[in-house]
Amino acid sequence: MRIVTVDLGERSYPIYIGQGLIDQIGPYFQRHGISTKSPLLIVTDELVAFHHLHRVEKQLASAGFQTVTKIVKSGETSKSLTVFEEVMTTAIQGGLDRSSTVVALGGGVVGDLAGFVAASYMRGIKFVQVPTTILAHDSSVGGKVAVNHPLAKNMIGAFHQPELVLYDLDTLQTLPPRDVSAGLSEMVKHGLIQDGDFARWCRDHAAELLSLDPEALGYGLERGCSIKAAVVSRDERENDLRAILNLGHTIGHAIEAVGGYGEYLHGEAISIGMAGSALLAVKLGRDESIYDETVSMLTSLRLPVKMANHLSTDDIMAAMMHDKKFKEGHMLFIIPDSIGSVSIVKDVPEQLVRDVIDQLREGGEIHV
Amino acid sequence: MRIVTVDLGERSYPIYIGQGLIDQIGPYFQRHGISTKSPLLIVTDELVAFHHLHRVEKQLASAGFQTVTKIVKSGETSKSLTVFEEVMTTAIQGGLDRSSTVVALGGGVVGDLAGFVAASYMRGIKFVQVPTTILAHDSSVGGKVAVNHPLAKNMIGAFHQPELVLYDLDTLQTLPPRDVSAGLSEMVKHGLIQDGDFARWCRDHAAELLSLDPEALGYGLERGCSIKAAVVSRDERENDLRAILNLGHTIGHAIEAVGGYGEYLHGEAISIGMAGSALLAVKLGRDESIYDETVSMLTSLRLPVKMANHLSTDDIMAAMMHDKKFKEGHMLFIIPDSIGSVSIVKDVPEQLVRDVIDQLREGGEIHV
Repeated sequence: MRIVTVDLGERSYPIYIGQGLIDQIGPYFQRHGISTKSPLLIVTDELVAFHHLHRVEKQLASAGFQTVTKIVKSGETSKSLTVFEEVMTTAIQGGLDRSSTVVALGGGVVGDLAGFVAASYMRGIKFVQVPTTILAHDSSVGGKVAVNHPLAKNMIGAFHQPELVLYDLDTLQTLPPRDVSAGLSEMVKHGLIQDGDFARWCRDHAAELLSLDPEALGYGLERGCSIKAAVVSRDERENDLRAILNLGHTIGHAIEAVGGYGEYLHGEAISIGMAGSALLAVKLGRDESIYDETVSMLTSLRLPVKMANHLSTDDIMAAMMHDKKFKEGHMLFIIPDSIGSVSIVKDVPEQLVRDVIDQLREGGEIHV
Repeated sequence: MRIVTVDLGERSYPIYIGQGLIDQIGPYFQRHGISTKSPLLIVTDELVAFHHLHRVEKQLASAGFQTVTKIVKSGETSKSLTVFEEVMTTAIQGGLDRSSTVVALGGGVVGDLAGFVAASYMRGIKFVQVPTTILAHDSSVGGKVAVNHPLAKNMIGAFHQPELVLYDLDTLQTLPPRDVSAGLSEMVKHGLIQDGDFARWCRDHAAELLSLDPEALGYGLERGCSIKAAVVSRDERENDLRAILNLGHTIGHAIEAVGGYGEYLHGEAISIGMAGSALLAVKLGRDESIYDETVSMLTSLRLPVKMANHLSTDDIMAAMMHDKKFKEGHMLFIIPDSIGSVSIVKDVPEQLVRDVIDQLREGGEIHV
């Protein structure tokens, strides 16, 4: 069993990573002061409920916890204010009080939704995450919770730290291969921003990671969570440093948006975005090997590094402008200086970004 | 000009109370670090907009601030997730960024709604209150912000402290007499819980207060805010002490709910609730003068101390049970020990509460 501590003063919390943890969920909850006197709300989605809900409910019941459960539809559409209000209805009808806890059983969508419910039910109650995807190793560190507004993603939310995170590697065994790769995208990102050796380790252990080998996966999640935790503990509310975690996200978010959130998974879009940032780095004068090595790492994890031809450069540029407010003619990007180190660059010429997007296409030629 | 400081460490903020403050709103904002570079969102309601919006917008524009405005319907119905999402839409379309500020221009409803928008837009931006009711002196201290769920009031919210509160006494001059009395209900409540002399001062200066004399009103608001600020600074997140601020609120909320939120104003319902708490105190063995003196204070401010006959005791009891989770047969109440001092009493027999509600009716006989 591995433990990563997210160090945030009185809001610090542990992430437990290992096998068979759900079978111990009751004792873990009790050890961390989750009350058996007030009802718990479990929030999960249809897919995760099918695989894991019964076991979680049974374990909690046998440890003396009262639970109510809200099952939402799988997918990003559940991160809406409408579904948020439905979850609140379940919470109220289930009699949750100020000593109650919300348990997120699922991936990033469930974590974000349930976390914002916990942050705002009666102005804030306790929150526990039980992630069931690799991608959620990213969202389970740092307390960012949110729902989407029809006009923009993650626009309505809070910073709300969990009491603990219980990462049961066994739940990952049911993930489809595409979700495995997409999850590893954020893992290798943590290496690319702060730890080149870890990024190389991800590439060298791609086969074990892709086949969900518990030893490799456990180490990768521990290292990924640790890197993110170190950044977050220095800048909890994203005033400056925390922005480096957005490597690949400006281009990636735009690709997701222009693709209508159906074409690419978040991790896939971020992967293309990281390839784009590496290409920008080279165009800004960094070593050419940055792009080549980034691409080799991402492709080893079966991640895309170019986007489909039908996504137009104009649309991608417009989506980026909408996502972030850039000063006229210049854009802010997280740019790799080498593998394992990045800078926040505030004055990237818009034309250079446009060139990169043009070249970041299937069949497109890369000019460095 | 009077200044009350709400002492909450790094979240401390000043409440300025005086005449003509809106004419100085630009300089006040600048002094408190509100940026002219990012757009401000003004949230107000139709009634307040009619009287004061133009002046606020003009003053801010002349001080170099860019503003967008959302005008909501006057009244409690605007504290819904639907209106909340509409305000968010205005914020996004107006280009608010993470350095922007939400300005609540209005009473408690606008303050609660705009405050929750500020708490959750992009996971939290700055917030300023410009209260235009007497009642808002209560809600502008302590950072409690929320919207209602169809099943329960204030169920969805946050603790989000403003940067400053600008209490311009001139805006109160347009208040209807019934709102004046209802606002004074929370003012005298602050005396009843912590400062008997101030409660008596309210009674002795009822005529000046009811006629909105700026000197009396300024002092009353300053003292009311100070008492609340002292309680809140010792218990920001309502773990224990802060509960004393709920004097009269358990019965009062039930009266509001059973009356369908149209029959009684919040302050009126709380007034009846405070009379009920005083009656409970006497039935629990406290001095009989507590009830008599409480009633004399409330009636001097033209506040009701009994409810309409058609509100049934069963409905009121059921609403209280729904509002708070009480242990079987026993209820928690804030009970006056004398004028200016209260206790949190956890084991008030349900039957005693039922007797009080029975007697708390127009024409009902009081038995102590």
